[in-house]
Amino acid sequence: MKAARTPGSDDEDRRARVAWTRIAEPGDPVAAALIAEVGAAAALRVVQTRCDSVLERFRPRLARLDVGRDLETAARCGARIVVPGDDEWPAGLDDLAAPPACLWVRGPLHLARLSQCSVAIVGARAATAYGERLAADIAAGVAEAGYTVVSGAAFGIDAAAHRGALAVSGSTVAVLAGGVDRPYPIAHTDLLTQIAETGAVVAEVAPGSAPTRPRFLLRNRLIATMTGGTLVVEAGLRSGSRNTAGSAADHGRVVMALPGPVTSMMSAGCHELIRSGAAVLVTDAEEVIDAVGRPGTDMVPPRRGPERTEDRLSGVDRVVFEALPLRKEVSVAQLAWAAGLPEREVAAALGRLGLLGGAVRGTAGWRRGTIRGHKD
Amino acid sequence: MKAARTPGSDDEDRRARVAWTRIAEPGDPVAAALIAEVGAAAALRVVQTRCDSVLERFRPRLARLDVGRDLETAARCGARIVVPGDDEWPAGLDDLAAPPACLWVRGPLHLARLSQCSVAIVGARAATAYGERLAADIAAGVAEAGYTVVSGAAFGIDAAAHRGALAVSGSTVAVLAGGVDRPYPIAHTDLLTQIAETGAVVAEVAPGSAPTRPRFLLRNRLIATMTGGTLVVEAGLRSGSRNTAGSAADHGRVVMALPGPVTSMMSAGCHELIRSGAAVLVTDAEEVIDAVGRPGTDMVPPRRGPERTEDRLSGVDRVVFEALPLRKEVSVAQLAWAAGLPEREVAAALGRLGLLGGAVRGTAGWRRGTIRGHKD
Repeated sequence: MKAARTPGSDDEDRRARVAWTRIAEPGDPVAAALIAEVGAAAALRVVQTRCDSVLERFRPRLARLDVGRDLETAARCGARIVVPGDDEWPAGLDDLAAPPACLWVRGPLHLARLSQCSVAIVGARAATAYGERLAADIAAGVAEAGYTVVSGAAFGIDAAAHRGALAVSGSTVAVLAGGVDRPYPIAHTDLLTQIAETGAVVAEVAPGSAPTRPRFLLRNRLIATMTGGTLVVEAGLRSGSRNTAGSAADHGRVVMALPGPVTSMMSAGCHELIRSGAAVLVTDAEEVIDAVGRPGTDMVPPRRGPERTEDRLSGVDRVVFEALPLRKEVSVAQLAWAAGLPEREVAAALGRLGLLGGAVRGTAGWRRGTIRGHKD
Repeated sequence: MKAARTPGSDDEDRRARVAWTRIAEPGDPVAAALIAEVGAAAALRVVQTRCDSVLERFRPRLARLDVGRDLETAARCGARIVVPGDDEWPAGLDDLAAPPACLWVRGPLHLARLSQCSVAIVGARAATAYGERLAADIAAGVAEAGYTVVSGAAFGIDAAAHRGALAVSGSTVAVLAGGVDRPYPIAHTDLLTQIAETGAVVAEVAPGSAPTRPRFLLRNRLIATMTGGTLVVEAGLRSGSRNTAGSAADHGRVVMALPGPVTSMMSAGCHELIRSGAAVLVTDAEEVIDAVGRPGTDMVPPRRGPERTEDRLSGVDRVVFEALPLRKEVSVAQLAWAAGLPEREVAAALGRLGLLGGAVRGTAGWRRGTIRGHKD
């Protein structure tokens, strides 16, 4: 948890976070930076008292803010508030540059389960019978193995994944783009009720909020980071699922894709993810579990605490980065000698490091630069 | 060409090579080594005159050898002899540890075309309608782009690939496991006649030879190395096509696999090739051409000349291999220090090198071993 909190201020922090989900759009970088810097409550006071053009965006909603009413609405639909620092806060969300101020949660499932073992299963709304069957089969398989299946409750693959998990009495979580009290799509009202009975229905926007288009894309980043990996079952070439996959990859999560007939446009997005190396090909629940890691054995722990950006570099890139002097500039040949690598590989690594900012080309050769991180 | 040849000895060399295809099985390492060392004609004299247990294997067939009769049989079915050094000798075959002594060829296609642009399209005999349709579509697509489609004339994928190329008046080559005068399978007699009319039917065994089981596997190495890359369209988990793919990979050729429904066992071998990183996923002719390289632009030239086996090691493995002492044994920690790599990566590299023979574990730690090569 980044926000500074002192004992006794918990209730104030909670109420302030509720307010923030009402006045700021999901992923708002200014809101996130303010909350991270001074805490949710102080950040709210800043917005309420200070005149600053960058804060203007929050003012219209600030006027109509009524935290008490929002909490009552939540209580009426059986929703609770989960904030960073709570036992059940999904640790993975802290990897986001702009994490939710809080989550609105309906259902008995303790969200801490997500940090132990979970898989996102997402895909096209206009899915084929093949895709829906496999989504349900794989969801049932991983749920039986103890994994929580996270998806977005949409038509097609999402619904099939939730249903597959429910069919084996497994645990499943639906993350909505709108308010937690607002079943969407409306045809999935019963499905969402069923999920809320045994699993959890989650939203980062306040109750009553509409599921707008940008909120769908921002919702995807929650699905991607609260889970250990994302499986794309079917996706067209321009699909929201590929957005979820991209977010998962950006945050170091495993991305998987299910192949299908090359004659099906609904598998084209999956094939492209595999071709480009963005996703590993999986064909069944067993391979999904292998990719995500088995609980208690090789499960990647949620990444926490300070991490040096260079830790993310792979083998050769890291060796070359470490060999680069900070001030003096050196030639590729000198570097190859220092790194004990062929010049060809050093040159390729410099190209990749250059894109990340880790290598800088000067007039006399190369020196070390600062790698641009994904967060902070 | 490895064999020593002097002017004027061409006809003798040719006749000797014809004899070798009669007396030695395809891929025979003793025959290949002898021919490479002293030339085909001298090698034949060695076998005819010297008593050596290692040469015993050739003696039974030597007694019944009749080169003149074999050449007559070939002439009757319109077959010609192509030997190393001939303009149309497929250069890729020289990458084999035991290349054919000569090829028996029926059909007008000049085999030099194979060195310019060609693709092997292979797959299961028990193919599905999906696989056959895609094999024919992709074969037609690459043939229209000027590539020669090489396959094995078997039922299923092979036949579909040949037919796809023929359907667009493209060029196609069938490589047989038996004699060039012996259509196999017999049901494909018309197909093979059609291929011989515009393309080429090729064999490395003498006319009349039966297509035995080991010869099928050895035939696959010809398909894999005479082409720029191998596409596996459908394959079960234990499939001869995966043998062709392995041979292509061993010799630095691109291996491609077509995905399909995960519910089809006929795509399971393809998915496994992609999952293991042995093959790139392709979905159409365009992607096949991208992978193999466009003629005249990025086509990979046939690899020639001596290559150190360690040249094949990738980044980290190579660094660790170079850091391993030849006699003294060192710990993983010492190696990590010497190689400038994290211990975790060093341990993983040692595991991989161990499988190749490049790292040996002793009582006091690790030392360098000899990497087992695929050739020589």
